[in-house]
Amino acid sequence: MQRRTFLAALSSTLAVLGRSAGEGRQVSSLPDPPIEDLVAANRILAMEGVLDGMGHVSVRHNSRANRFLLARSMVPELVAAADIMEYDLESNAVDARGRASYRERFIHSEIYKARPDVNAIVHCHTPSLIPFADSDVPLRAMYHMAAFVADGVPVFDIRQAAGITDLLVGDATLGRALAATLGGKSVALMRHHGAVVVASSIPNVVGRSVYLDLNARIQMQTVALGGKATYVDPAEAKLRMTDPNEYARAWELWKRKATR
Amino acid sequence: MQRRTFLAALSSTLAVLGRSAGEGRQVSSLPDPPIEDLVAANRILAMEGVLDGMGHVSVRHNSRANRFLLARSMVPELVAAADIMEYDLESNAVDARGRASYRERFIHSEIYKARPDVNAIVHCHTPSLIPFADSDVPLRAMYHMAAFVADGVPVFDIRQAAGITDLLVGDATLGRALAATLGGKSVALMRHHGAVVVASSIPNVVGRSVYLDLNARIQMQTVALGGKATYVDPAEAKLRMTDPNEYARAWELWKRKATR
Amino acid sequence: MQRRTFLAALSSTLAVLGRSAGEGRQVSSLPDPPIEDLVAANRILAMEGVLDGMGHVSVRHNSRANRFLLARSMVPELVAAADIMEYDLESNAVDARGRASYRERFIHSEIYKARPDVNAIVHCHTPSLIPFADSDVPLRAMYHMAAFVADGVPVFDIRQAAGITDLLVGDATLGRALAATLGGKSVALMRHHGAVVVASSIPNVVGRSVYLDLNARIQMQTVALGGKATYVDPAEAKLRMTDPNEYARAWELWKRKATR
Amino acid sequence: MQRRTFLAALSSTLAVLGRSAGEGRQVSSLPDPPIEDLVAANRILAMEGVLDGMGHVSVRHNSRANRFLLARSMVPELVAAADIMEYDLESNAVDARGRASYRERFIHSEIYKARPDVNAIVHCHTPSLIPFADSDVPLRAMYHMAAFVADGVPVFDIRQAAGITDLLVGDATLGRALAATLGGKSVALMRHHGAVVVASSIPNVVGRSVYLDLNARIQMQTVALGGKATYVDPAEAKLRMTDPNEYARAWELWKRKATR
Repeated sequence: MQRRTFLAALSSTLAVLGRSAGEGRQVSSLPDPPIEDLVAANRILAMEGVLDGMGHVSVRHNSRANRFLLARSMVPELVAAADIMEYDLESNAVDARGRASYRERFIHSEIYKARPDVNAIVHCHTPSLIPFADSDVPLRAMYHMAAFVADGVPVFDIRQAAGITDLLVGDATLGRALAATLGGKSVALMRHHGAVVVASSIPNVVGRSVYLDLNARIQMQTVALGGKATYVDPAEAKLRMTDPNEYARAWELWKRKATR
Repeated sequence: MQRRTFLAALSSTLAVLGRSAGEGRQVSSLPDPPIEDLVAANRILAMEGVLDGMGHVSVRHNSRANRFLLARSMVPELVAAADIMEYDLESNAVDARGRASYRERFIHSEIYKARPDVNAIVHCHTPSLIPFADSDVPLRAMYHMAAFVADGVPVFDIRQAAGITDLLVGDATLGRALAATLGGKSVALMRHHGAVVVASSIPNVVGRSVYLDLNARIQMQTVALGGKATYVDPAEAKLRMTDPNEYARAWELWKRKATR
Repeated sequence: MQRRTFLAALSSTLAVLGRSAGEGRQVSSLPDPPIEDLVAANRILAMEGVLDGMGHVSVRHNSRANRFLLARSMVPELVAAADIMEYDLESNAVDARGRASYRERFIHSEIYKARPDVNAIVHCHTPSLIPFADSDVPLRAMYHMAAFVADGVPVFDIRQAAGITDLLVGDATLGRALAATLGGKSVALMRHHGAVVVASSIPNVVGRSVYLDLNARIQMQTVALGGKATYVDPAEAKLRMTDPNEYARAWELWKRKATR
Repeated sequence: MQRRTFLAALSSTLAVLGRSAGEGRQVSSLPDPPIEDLVAANRILAMEGVLDGMGHVSVRHNSRANRFLLARSMVPELVAAADIMEYDLESNAVDARGRASYRERFIHSEIYKARPDVNAIVHCHTPSLIPFADSDVPLRAMYHMAAFVADGVPVFDIRQAAGITDLLVGDATLGRALAATLGGKSVALMRHHGAVVVASSIPNVVGRSVYLDLNARIQMQTVALGGKATYVDPAEAKLRMTDPNEYARAWELWKRKATR
């Protein structure tokens, strides 16, 4: 069923792309927007337990840097190409056609505004991250597969930013406060809520989200083991992270599994 | 096989409903009893690990507030429409037709009596809840997905209510004692036994049961991490819980997966 | 494939039973040996994570109390009816036909000799049990689904019984020592090895093995939670265990899932 | 799909073997290289959670002791016969045909050089091992299924061997340093990285990798339980490990599941 849904969505996407290629030669030299990879990312993140019924993943438009793509308000695991909407950096839908928007889309727009180097963003409630979001124990880089954690992981406390709220990042002001906490890092935890993960591409943001979860579990087990622990050095992490396609090998596997 | 069983049960239900619609026009304006959703809830709770071979979920009848629907005594994962029985608030089966009843159905009848706001109830033995039921560490709300926990989670100790028993809530007196411990809350833990979760609808009681399990695991991991932890504030939780269809998005996913 | 293997094995068993019924009327009044349930038990215990590639489950012959049935030396998950062998209480195969025997079959024969009330035995290496087998923290009954644990769980230390060995219960002397440690209980842990679980029937020994695993995990989580814990009282456990078919409901589910 | 890929790869392998058997009688008396088992090992280790998108497994060539077989640089779970490459003990590919090599293949070549008794090697990042790699708590043998752990498990710290690096064992010098840390043992942990496991055969190295993971989890749970623990004695382990086909029974199951 999933597969059929996916193929149907894919073929309708291809039809749309084919039509626009036929109708307007002037766009045919631009790369296609990465809709297929964004659909795959939604399904992979569900498959790997990073997202459940909630959470979302976006990508900056590949030819219009002030636009980003995000699914309509729905369960990530069921997202198909027809569910992908385009937003400007004020989180206005460019062509909603009646499709509802995620209330927390401001997380994405404000980070894309503040971080030109970021092309893909995940917002998640992964259970392994909450203990670090809710306590004063900092996340540390436990192994080379999560070397990016060595940069440090700030915690966004919405209560300090805006007092008593419903805990959701539901407007641009809160989105900006979260982006300010994130600064130049790869991850910010969100107290009593979850996390936001950013990267240069969809495969990288998916890879970081998956290995952030694994790294958090490993750190919790290391603490429970009770010995004296050591961590990846930031200088080691910097050397480790020179490959711009760091998670390409795993991405190939995940995409194949999530879309079959 | 599961799916075939489900479809068979569904079609026989539809046949029954069709016949009564044909035979008596006067009931055709009433909403159908939520049998399909109750069957789905049984399967979802098994799929998500909230229920195993034991435990049960009920719904208050949508047009007769002094009646509730509950499967015959059987494994939740295998429940089909034909297994759903109707009970009055003394836990008498309205039309048993030889079908056996759960011995602990008094949990449901006594809570429906005491709580007019409650329309759906889960009784479960979810492993992650037992450490909190068996110890003096209170369950706390760790993140916004389980904001309802911020109301507080009382523990029902059957030994204090009735001395040495077989630990089962097997009659109306014990059911009343459990309902009294629950009071106006969303959850009561049951010492050496499990928990009862209540809500305004089937999707909400299923959502609360799933996220109660996740919240309990997150709290155990937070404690093991050893730092200073903070929790969702009751005022934040109150603002977070204004959506009456809080778990609608996840429910759509769960129902699709559990009934295919 | 699994299912086909199972059906093939089943039909050959039925053929054998049919033939003997035709050839000798005098045995037709005896109940069939519970081969089908023993095959199911092997698969259920693998499915539920109690057994992995190793471990075994046996049943006392239902009409010859000095005989028991046990698979040939093989992986539990792949056991079919044709793999079931019959043994006497000295662990001699009655009709080996070239089939190899488990080296640790003496666990079964010596317990059947010492315990007339026992009709089914599981020997397993379930990971959740090893921490209790290897340490001085006793297993305690955490909830009513594992009430039998309240009787107490002795630990068999083969080093105390026989000094330095290969840790396997590979002869009758070691089997007798293990049976002596078990005494009248339902479970004995085996230091640096695993456990043995006994009961009055196949469904009960499977149910106990599954809930022993859950109970062990719950106890470990309760300890990690750090509060003051309480346990099921032996008097409560005794009242809870009066149902001779305690795990019948779960057995129905497990058997359906494991043999489809 | 996986199965079809596997069968296709297998049949092309058989075609190749058939052709060489037809073309040159002089090689027909040599045993076939264990390509099928190496493909199965890749899939088993992914299925059992030892490897994820990264990591690798190799086997020494069965008729040329100065050669070893290793997949091209790719995800283990997708490895097919056509992906297997042959290397000399300097990690040069004998017949690359454009296929990329794992950067860390020097782990394999340097251990094969130093250890004539080793015929199969796994390099993995199994999450349960990292807490022991990153802390000063030594891995101990918790039960007879992982008796080989009783020999002791050294930790390779690349920072001590080579200062600040990208943490990868990317050349022969680092491979030699790792082999020196391994010495005559079965396992070496790699700080902030993972582990290397060695054995006399593919089934044994797979079995050791799977039970090393289980043993690590058991030890972490035993520590968390807080009591006084005991461990398998090296003399017991030595008696336990006399069977050269120790994991044959589990291997049969794993291979059947991973290649269907």
